[in-house]
Amino acid sequence: MEKARNIVIFGGNGDLAMRKLLPALYHLYAEDLLQEKSCIVGIARKVMTQDEYRHFTKQALQDFVEKDFYDEVKVRTFLEHVVYVQLDAYDKNAYEALNIVLNEKGDVNKGSVFYFATPPELFQIIGGHLNDMQLTNAVSRIVVEKPIGTDLQSSITINEQLAALFPENNIYRIDHYLGKTSVQNLLALRFANRLFEPLWSQDNIDSVQITCAELVGVEGRWDYYDNAGALRDMVQNHLLQLLCLVAMEPPAQFDVKSIRDEKIKVLRSLRPLVDMDVLTNTVRGQYRSGVVNDTVLPAYTSEAGQGKKSDTETFVAMRAYVDNWRWAGVPFYLRTGKRLTRRYSEIVIQFKPVSHAIFSQPLTANRLVIRLQPNQEIKLILMNKEPGLSSDTKLEPVPLNLSLLESFRTQRSPGAYERLLYDAIKGDGRLFMSRYEVEEAWRWIDNVLQGWEKMQMPVSYYHAGGMGPMQSDQLLSEDGRQWLNPNFDEI
Amino acid sequence: MEKARNIVIFGGNGDLAMRKLLPALYHLYAEDLLQEKSCIVGIARKVMTQDEYRHFTKQALQDFVEKDFYDEVKVRTFLEHVVYVQLDAYDKNAYEALNIVLNEKGDVNKGSVFYFATPPELFQIIGGHLNDMQLTNAVSRIVVEKPIGTDLQSSITINEQLAALFPENNIYRIDHYLGKTSVQNLLALRFANRLFEPLWSQDNIDSVQITCAELVGVEGRWDYYDNAGALRDMVQNHLLQLLCLVAMEPPAQFDVKSIRDEKIKVLRSLRPLVDMDVLTNTVRGQYRSGVVNDTVLPAYTSEAGQGKKSDTETFVAMRAYVDNWRWAGVPFYLRTGKRLTRRYSEIVIQFKPVSHAIFSQPLTANRLVIRLQPNQEIKLILMNKEPGLSSDTKLEPVPLNLSLLESFRTQRSPGAYERLLYDAIKGDGRLFMSRYEVEEAWRWIDNVLQGWEKMQMPVSYYHAGGMGPMQSDQLLSEDGRQWLNPNFDEI
Repeated sequence: MEKARNIVIFGGNGDLAMRKLLPALYHLYAEDLLQEKSCIVGIARKVMTQDEYRHFTKQALQDFVEKDFYDEVKVRTFLEHVVYVQLDAYDKNAYEALNIVLNEKGDVNKGSVFYFATPPELFQIIGGHLNDMQLTNAVSRIVVEKPIGTDLQSSITINEQLAALFPENNIYRIDHYLGKTSVQNLLALRFANRLFEPLWSQDNIDSVQITCAELVGVEGRWDYYDNAGALRDMVQNHLLQLLCLVAMEPPAQFDVKSIRDEKIKVLRSLRPLVDMDVLTNTVRGQYRSGVVNDTVLPAYTSEAGQGKKSDTETFVAMRAYVDNWRWAGVPFYLRTGKRLTRRYSEIVIQFKPVSHAIFSQPLTANRLVIRLQPNQEIKLILMNKEPGLSSDTKLEPVPLNLSLLESFRTQRSPGAYERLLYDAIKGDGRLFMSRYEVEEAWRWIDNVLQGWEKMQMPVSYYHAGGMGPMQSDQLLSEDGRQWLNPNFDEI
Repeated sequence: MEKARNIVIFGGNGDLAMRKLLPALYHLYAEDLLQEKSCIVGIARKVMTQDEYRHFTKQALQDFVEKDFYDEVKVRTFLEHVVYVQLDAYDKNAYEALNIVLNEKGDVNKGSVFYFATPPELFQIIGGHLNDMQLTNAVSRIVVEKPIGTDLQSSITINEQLAALFPENNIYRIDHYLGKTSVQNLLALRFANRLFEPLWSQDNIDSVQITCAELVGVEGRWDYYDNAGALRDMVQNHLLQLLCLVAMEPPAQFDVKSIRDEKIKVLRSLRPLVDMDVLTNTVRGQYRSGVVNDTVLPAYTSEAGQGKKSDTETFVAMRAYVDNWRWAGVPFYLRTGKRLTRRYSEIVIQFKPVSHAIFSQPLTANRLVIRLQPNQEIKLILMNKEPGLSSDTKLEPVPLNLSLLESFRTQRSPGAYERLLYDAIKGDGRLFMSRYEVEEAWRWIDNVLQGWEKMQMPVSYYHAGGMGPMQSDQLLSEDGRQWLNPNFDEI
């Protein structure tokens, strides 16, 4: 039986806690997946009473839990498990207050889950004080999230700081894209079925497209974002993690080490984009103002007040190759950006055409589409015969739904944070990243960043509400391909 | 533009005409797929007026056309195209009456479709008289159906008789199983999609099961059936044809010759079952009485009155091998019988298990199920992840519907005879059998028949309403497999 584990959130009144963590913990509680004695400790510098923090929590649940699952009774009892600790992260003595709460709450083995929902500069401070105050031990778990650095060197620094304080296996680096049900389904499809693995290589796959499109602009995060850009903010973590899951060899076991090793092998196999390579294989974009449904959307440079100057990319498209036996010659097209046509994330596995066409009509090549956002589904596009006699074996591409949500419709699909928090509580690190993955990803990204600087790679402009600059389409049309956008009216 | 083609049915007042041919022709007419001037000529020895035959036809449509598609107005105009010709097949001069009708109906190029819904003994007589009376020419089409012989020699005789009268390409040998939508979908799936062909061999397929189960007993056909038995009646034609479609190499073109050549290659690759082989690879069964839903079903030997003696098989199960590169070592299990639990026909492609299991639970190996009767569908059984958190990557087998009927739900799926008649009218022979297929199938069956006789292979008994004798299950359990019966409550 699992011992009771408290969940301690540094940044307990922040955006992430409000939108994601507290609702996720409520869901786990409502489904009886938290230990009876577990309590949720929100920590922040702000002076708040217990009542005020519970009110904050209740408001978060009202705003971010779906109506159907907001249960007044369960919310009330859940709130009884919520505690606030006011604390200045830099003030070591202040941690005594946390110590008292945790002891009170019967955390006898000190196996709390500490979620550092804070800037990475604080990781070392908080971790150090937790250790010094003996609030942690060998079974404590530390959850951190991006950004883990802004380049290889800074990520190594952060990882080293954490490594000095906690064993690697106790550190849970979240990439919430990996908590998506459809991503886990992709793994189940690949490795629990005979059907896909024989097809999963350059023998039968033409190309892979990974798109993470955002509808929003930078909103309140302009200053942070302008220093980061889309490549650091999205490609280094989410897109490369998805690429890893598509491209990795079948792990020999389905355990943390085997999975991480396979992902690292993929990252190491990524063909480096050095200097001139960035000119032909990457596209940087920045949005200008655009009109969508009669609404004028501002340009990136106008979002934080008029007349800022910036050549930060809010859009990236790139052609990547995984140089190994399985993927030789198969391009992986990556694309992400802000202020695009729709919010959606999708992996498209484009199969090759049939090797010899015997039907007297053009055939659509098979395609496997893994949608992560806004809905989660896996679709297989197959050619199928139309019924009826009026034409000669008339074939049509038909999308087949491979997602469970259809098959197990009665069950709610858990959110990504819910899944990942539950895994962290259980000590299951398979959907988290190791430091080596983070660093290998940075190593590859650093080349691109340096190439951009060296080549003075310009940004290309696109209209807010579009799908990125013309150069992004050209990147694929050069190869005789095109971006396989979904039907935007359907998502 | 197609010239008007009349459809002439010898045996025009028989069971096949009533149940299948006339309803199929009505459907073609209702969907505007018959030429305006085409007429349907029913021929039989019985003296009937035009009104009586139209009444017979109308009754057939009332009984055998689905309510939703029975349209009073269309039936009335359809009946205007129906003509009866009373004729003794042996009486050459009587064919003049047919000549008059066809001339009247403007069959200027004599390209009628002649459906010989008669015993095969009549084929030569009817064909000879048609030729002699110059009712046929190079574009006439002759449709015949099983039984084409009762062994290799008699099938050669029938085929030679037809060959003396008509070119092979004008002879349309029907196997109505090939007219099933799901069978054609199987071909579309295999050859219009990249996904299946790389999997379609002993590399990934464990075994194939083909079942044609009948609910009915022999009913009025006892004497015929007792001479034939299930092997001749079902395996030689339907089951072997289905086996051919599953096992054949991709034809280089999707034309008559290429498809037939590939099917013949399969039949020639069937490992002969000679002498002793039948003891270990075949099961003969005969039903005894059984009780189903409190109803006592009679034994085979009691169906035509008490106390008949017979060791004719009403059930066959067999293990066949296609000895070629693609199918080496993959057993094809065939099974057919009367008075089984349900009426259904199904092909099950059983894939091998994943080559290495990384999930900590048993996995169901993938399976492709092509159902021909009573409903037509193709299902793929995949392992899929259950949503939810309460268990560790819980995987469940989920049936995926690959049939079009779902995707194109608005359209009616044409019946097998409708499809095949339409093909014969158009002159498309791809779904028909050549004489060489029929003969190669008999060659293989003859060995089994001779083996049974030589080895004095006994029948094993089974209860009416079951799924055949114990020996049938043993045939598979010897190989560590079992019959993959559908859920009988669902069909």
